[in-house]
Amino acid sequence: MNISIIAIGTELLIGQVIDTNSGDIATRFAPYGWNVNDIQVVDDNAFQITRAIDRAFESSDVVITTGGLGPTKDDITKATLCDYFGGEMREDPSVLENIKQVFAKRGLTLNDLTSRQAIVPTSCKVIQNTVGTAPIMWFEKEGKVLVAMPGVPFETREMLDSAVIPALLDRFKSNVSIEHRCVLVTGYTESLLAMTISDWEESLPDFLHLAYLPKPGLVRLRIDGTHHDKDYLINEIDRRHAELCRILGDHVLCDRDIPLEKLLLDELRARDLTISTAESCTGGNIAHMLTSIPGCSEMFNGGVVAYSNPVKESILGVSPKTLEKVGAVSEEVVREMVEGACKAFNTDCAIATSGIAGPSGGTEEKPVGTVCIGIKTPDGTVSRRYHFPGSRQRVIERASMTALILAIENLHKIKDNEADNK
Amino acid sequence: MNISIIAIGTELLIGQVIDTNSGDIATRFAPYGWNVNDIQVVDDNAFQITRAIDRAFESSDVVITTGGLGPTKDDITKATLCDYFGGEMREDPSVLENIKQVFAKRGLTLNDLTSRQAIVPTSCKVIQNTVGTAPIMWFEKEGKVLVAMPGVPFETREMLDSAVIPALLDRFKSNVSIEHRCVLVTGYTESLLAMTISDWEESLPDFLHLAYLPKPGLVRLRIDGTHHDKDYLINEIDRRHAELCRILGDHVLCDRDIPLEKLLLDELRARDLTISTAESCTGGNIAHMLTSIPGCSEMFNGGVVAYSNPVKESILGVSPKTLEKVGAVSEEVVREMVEGACKAFNTDCAIATSGIAGPSGGTEEKPVGTVCIGIKTPDGTVSRRYHFPGSRQRVIERASMTALILAIENLHKIKDNEADNK
Repeated sequence: MNISIIAIGTELLIGQVIDTNSGDIATRFAPYGWNVNDIQVVDDNAFQITRAIDRAFESSDVVITTGGLGPTKDDITKATLCDYFGGEMREDPSVLENIKQVFAKRGLTLNDLTSRQAIVPTSCKVIQNTVGTAPIMWFEKEGKVLVAMPGVPFETREMLDSAVIPALLDRFKSNVSIEHRCVLVTGYTESLLAMTISDWEESLPDFLHLAYLPKPGLVRLRIDGTHHDKDYLINEIDRRHAELCRILGDHVLCDRDIPLEKLLLDELRARDLTISTAESCTGGNIAHMLTSIPGCSEMFNGGVVAYSNPVKESILGVSPKTLEKVGAVSEEVVREMVEGACKAFNTDCAIATSGIAGPSGGTEEKPVGTVCIGIKTPDGTVSRRYHFPGSRQRVIERASMTALILAIENLHKIKDNEADNK
Repeated sequence: MNISIIAIGTELLIGQVIDTNSGDIATRFAPYGWNVNDIQVVDDNAFQITRAIDRAFESSDVVITTGGLGPTKDDITKATLCDYFGGEMREDPSVLENIKQVFAKRGLTLNDLTSRQAIVPTSCKVIQNTVGTAPIMWFEKEGKVLVAMPGVPFETREMLDSAVIPALLDRFKSNVSIEHRCVLVTGYTESLLAMTISDWEESLPDFLHLAYLPKPGLVRLRIDGTHHDKDYLINEIDRRHAELCRILGDHVLCDRDIPLEKLLLDELRARDLTISTAESCTGGNIAHMLTSIPGCSEMFNGGVVAYSNPVKESILGVSPKTLEKVGAVSEEVVREMVEGACKAFNTDCAIATSGIAGPSGGTEEKPVGTVCIGIKTPDGTVSRRYHFPGSRQRVIERASMTALILAIENLHKIKDNEADNK
């Protein structure tokens, strides 16, 4: 099944809001073998919306629109859809009832503007929005389907999973299987990696395709496969995936696509270990990444953002002498930081960062982008110095990702050592 | 000037990577009065890329493409552009030299695959990429321009600012001015806000347009204006903006568009105050937001992620009795957490959060989404209990934003009290 996504909203075109809905929808469709053909982002403008729908239907059976359904005056999607699919605008009592319930749950009183959201084109079938007030509208025309969804990301996610995907599964049946397999690879540039696996890549059959997806500190390799025979596809893609992992050996950080923070927590759980963080230049980002994963509290006790030297001394017990001698951005200090974090938070492992995220604060010896990372595991303590190019945001992101990778690699070493000892 | 953006990459269509480049480009173009007409996201596929360019040129003078320029085999953009604009593929010595320099700076050795990036269509003018290896290509056809940029977000940003925008400014001259003004509004739902300002909104002239941009905990109102007479436009938009701020009174958190974390730091700097954080359920996200702002170390000393009760006791000095009596998720505990944070980090102010982000851990009395927030300023300490609906990510995000808003409002009170005392 071919799908097009249209995200509607002036705010998306002047960069005040980033369209994350389209990517979210695509992620949710992939497991069903549905192919997202294209994404269009257009203005709150009838001509543009109409043209985008025409273009989308040229190559897709299903169009999902998001946004442009709020109660306020800048939203004209509903009227445009009514013009496109016919019918007239009329209040739907079931929608009004749903809005009343959503408002009651939030302890808010209904007003005229909100109740206007109950007015929908008579040409659509309504799917009640159980987590918001803008109704979801399902239109059909010449065997093709358009589903208009709200622009609020969490409403889109919730309603896709609970109502829209089930309705699409019911309406369309696919007979082509799609499978994806991933490998997270460290220690290669994209081009060196491509050279290393070029023979393997050349030998892939036509129905398998390799994509390189570089991320800070690693390259994700994704094998995409499409075939009518699902069992044959799974068999082949798994075989090729195993071959790829063998060729890459120790460079394989993980043989599936998983956020690094989740991978680290999984590796800790598997070894019954706990962790804490002591962050200077990453400013809490590593703790934030770890705590975004449900159940992290089993492994993660806590962390400190030590943004000043006195805090490094008082909470982490970093020696004032070390700070004076080699400065806060040093391999020595991050070593003391991980020791201090393990004590302060009573953990087996710790991650520490200290660096100059910029844009100012650099010196000739330690330019902006210099970051020291320390990792403590039961296997020992390592510390390394890096230089990450780019903006403050990028230095923080690169340093966080690199710290997670280094922690995972050091946990893998424990496994290897244990294996050696046997 | 009308602009279309085309983001190229299979990974964007299966949701493995979110296209942030397009929004970034739009943000950077807005100050020049350039209008982003539409954004298209398409596959690494010659037919789709060609069709997207055709569609983009239908309504735009300038097309910016991002992505699809890497050295590996899934990138076919360059060949497609060569077919579209004519000429042939040939190695450009200046590009090869640039790639060598970029590699030397990173301490890497050039390989065949990377040097293939120096092969470009003879129909383009090359803009050297000073922060990466994929060259930027400038094509012209029948008075219209296409600029092909790399997909790596930080390369796109850097090269837009340093080279592409200056080249576009040089090539096109605009005679229409565009202005935007924003107001950040708290304490209203979108629809109640719309009713409150409907008279004012009705009275806006045709060349001014209001957009509602809801964010967690607040609504951003943006007035967009377009006019040939720049002085007149600025005068009118400023007058209407001032009117709007008067009508909304205390609900105005800020009269311009600024990230909440930056606003909080600005308010602290203006009062010569320092701050620390004590985060449980937000897990370091507030510290991460604050430290994403350059210069934050003047106001932000540090923070603790207190993900377990022992940490709340040992580092923040929360009383075990309080924890036992009312539980960690309570207004009492966040009060003790802000007191403890101010002591541990030697700051004037502090923010504390404690809650149940989910998906599990809720009880009947304290369901998932229950979050207590404490704020300490020289004016005193406040603590409040909230309930945020939605997923774990959304609870963390809402709680972080609400904590920043509450901190800013409490700093504003200091100003008001001082004014009252005069």
